[in-house]
Amino acid sequence: MEIGKKIKAGDIRAASRLIRDIEDSIPEAKFTIKHIFPYTGKAQVVGITGSPGAGKSTLVDGLVEANRKRNRTVGVLAVDPTSPFTGGATLGDRIRMQRHAEDPGVFIRSLATRGSLGGLSKAVGDAIHVMDAMGKDIILVETVGTGQQEVEIINYAHTVIVVLVPGMGDEIQAIKAGIMEIADIFVVNKSDREGAGKLQRELMAMLDMSPVAAGGWRPPIVTIGNSFKPEEFEQDIGKLSARIHEHYEFLVSSDLIGDRLRRKTMHELNEALRSSILEPVLNMLVSTGELDRMVEKLLKKESDPCSLAEEVARKYLQECI
Amino acid sequence: MEIGKKIKAGDIRAASRLIRDIEDSIPEAKFTIKHIFPYTGKAQVVGITGSPGAGKSTLVDGLVEANRKRNRTVGVLAVDPTSPFTGGATLGDRIRMQRHAEDPGVFIRSLATRGSLGGLSKAVGDAIHVMDAMGKDIILVETVGTGQQEVEIINYAHTVIVVLVPGMGDEIQAIKAGIMEIADIFVVNKSDREGAGKLQRELMAMLDMSPVAAGGWRPPIVTIGNSFKPEEFEQDIGKLSARIHEHYEFLVSSDLIGDRLRRKTMHELNEALRSSILEPVLNMLVSTGELDRMVEKLLKKESDPCSLAEEVARKYLQECI
Repeated sequence: MEIGKKIKAGDIRAASRLIRDIEDSIPEAKFTIKHIFPYTGKAQVVGITGSPGAGKSTLVDGLVEANRKRNRTVGVLAVDPTSPFTGGATLGDRIRMQRHAEDPGVFIRSLATRGSLGGLSKAVGDAIHVMDAMGKDIILVETVGTGQQEVEIINYAHTVIVVLVPGMGDEIQAIKAGIMEIADIFVVNKSDREGAGKLQRELMAMLDMSPVAAGGWRPPIVTIGNSFKPEEFEQDIGKLSARIHEHYEFLVSSDLIGDRLRRKTMHELNEALRSSILEPVLNMLVSTGELDRMVEKLLKKESDPCSLAEEVARKYLQECI
Repeated sequence: MEIGKKIKAGDIRAASRLIRDIEDSIPEAKFTIKHIFPYTGKAQVVGITGSPGAGKSTLVDGLVEANRKRNRTVGVLAVDPTSPFTGGATLGDRIRMQRHAEDPGVFIRSLATRGSLGGLSKAVGDAIHVMDAMGKDIILVETVGTGQQEVEIINYAHTVIVVLVPGMGDEIQAIKAGIMEIADIFVVNKSDREGAGKLQRELMAMLDMSPVAAGGWRPPIVTIGNSFKPEEFEQDIGKLSARIHEHYEFLVSSDLIGDRLRRKTMHELNEALRSSILEPVLNMLVSTGELDRMVEKLLKKESDPCSLAEEVARKYLQECI
């Protein structure tokens, strides 16, 4: 069977290998992605972002459980170097994860965040496609967030959850600086800690001051208690899961889902253009030794990067540009 | 006077305007950068990275002071959305910063982290060039770090300082996941807090296990106490300042400075190529409406991003590629 069809049929080995190939930028992966593209677009993609230590992985684990109870299949993609999914796991985390290992309705993979920024961004999008093509109902993408990465996630997710914990004063600063705009749902995690009420009030005050988003969605604030009290935790996760579902229904009923899809598509096309336009030129410059010669010129201050790049453009781009 | 010369002569207004133009991607800024490029390459560029709340700004402030006492001129570039330099300032922070406002030997500017990743990265490099051309002896670049941004900073800095604070258990995870490789100096900040000794021991253990870097530099660990005890704090900052100086001397004496320059230059050329090769093609696609038509096709699943991007490459790249 052709690999695209295998993945559509839910073949875990084929899907795992493709995600590894995507991560390692194996050229053949590109062709496989072409084949699975028609099968994509059905899953709800949920981004979960927040500082290291905010407890994102525990939430993801809870959400996996909650979705499985409703018979929804789940994909988990961890793009967080501190995530237990990715490797920085404590023993307790690992044991918790283990529960899902035998469940064919759950597919968990991680992507390393090293290497080029653009490359990672493209890999995240492609890995989501793989899980989507496998037919997962919901895909949870866990990214660590302070700055740019969590802004990237809006290019892929239908719903973005920003996870905060009490007692990290700088959270609010970070929110002011840009996370505010991307959150569809706020989670105040570890809400039994001191300062949870204050954090919640600050968030509400900020939401009150913010302009109402297109379509009138006001990000709800969900508080999640201690995961060592399983019953309460499960209840809280149930509420979060309901909010996620509501947000998707809101996107569909308000027709905003079209805007999000367009944004996702535009971003993806942009990444593809980078790899088909810029990369061949770079490869050419490397293989002919031209790149080295340019670097020497720059080190001697005989030219500047912008002038050299313009020369390259004149040489390799069609005259019409 | 021509603007490049003005900046070289230390004209603060011209430099400030150029940095704003760089940030806003004003096309003319590109030409000015060409003119100042020959005047660059003299400053020591020091990257300071760490989580929000790690106290980076207080360190930067202390380093400004320490350098001014030795009559060295200083540039500060804040690329951190939570930095007091950038706007997320408490009143105390602002008052502290204010001291330097009247000192012509100090030039402080910030860059917003919103917008495209590539754009920001290029802006950081160009803003460093401006401060370098102004003749600043040392340029301190403050970036928030969890993931990719602090890996970016190695493309610009001679010396990278990773700032950690006790009591954030996930720090060590983050280090394991990639910061370790980029740190030239570790700072254990707020070292009067509980857990400082433990953090220091863990760092040392990790350094013991790490392969010795090229040239034999072992990143020193500098502990910095409470900034509310000015005398001790000043002493600690003095030690940090000495380590920064030593690292630069090490780079020069071991001839590793050449490698770092080459890496910086290569990165910069890469960014310039992106803007001269990829951007004209994107502009063409937008102005002809071709981009919109491609997005529609993708939304209807009539094609996939990779195939469309390859068509564009065949159309706009010279046949030789």
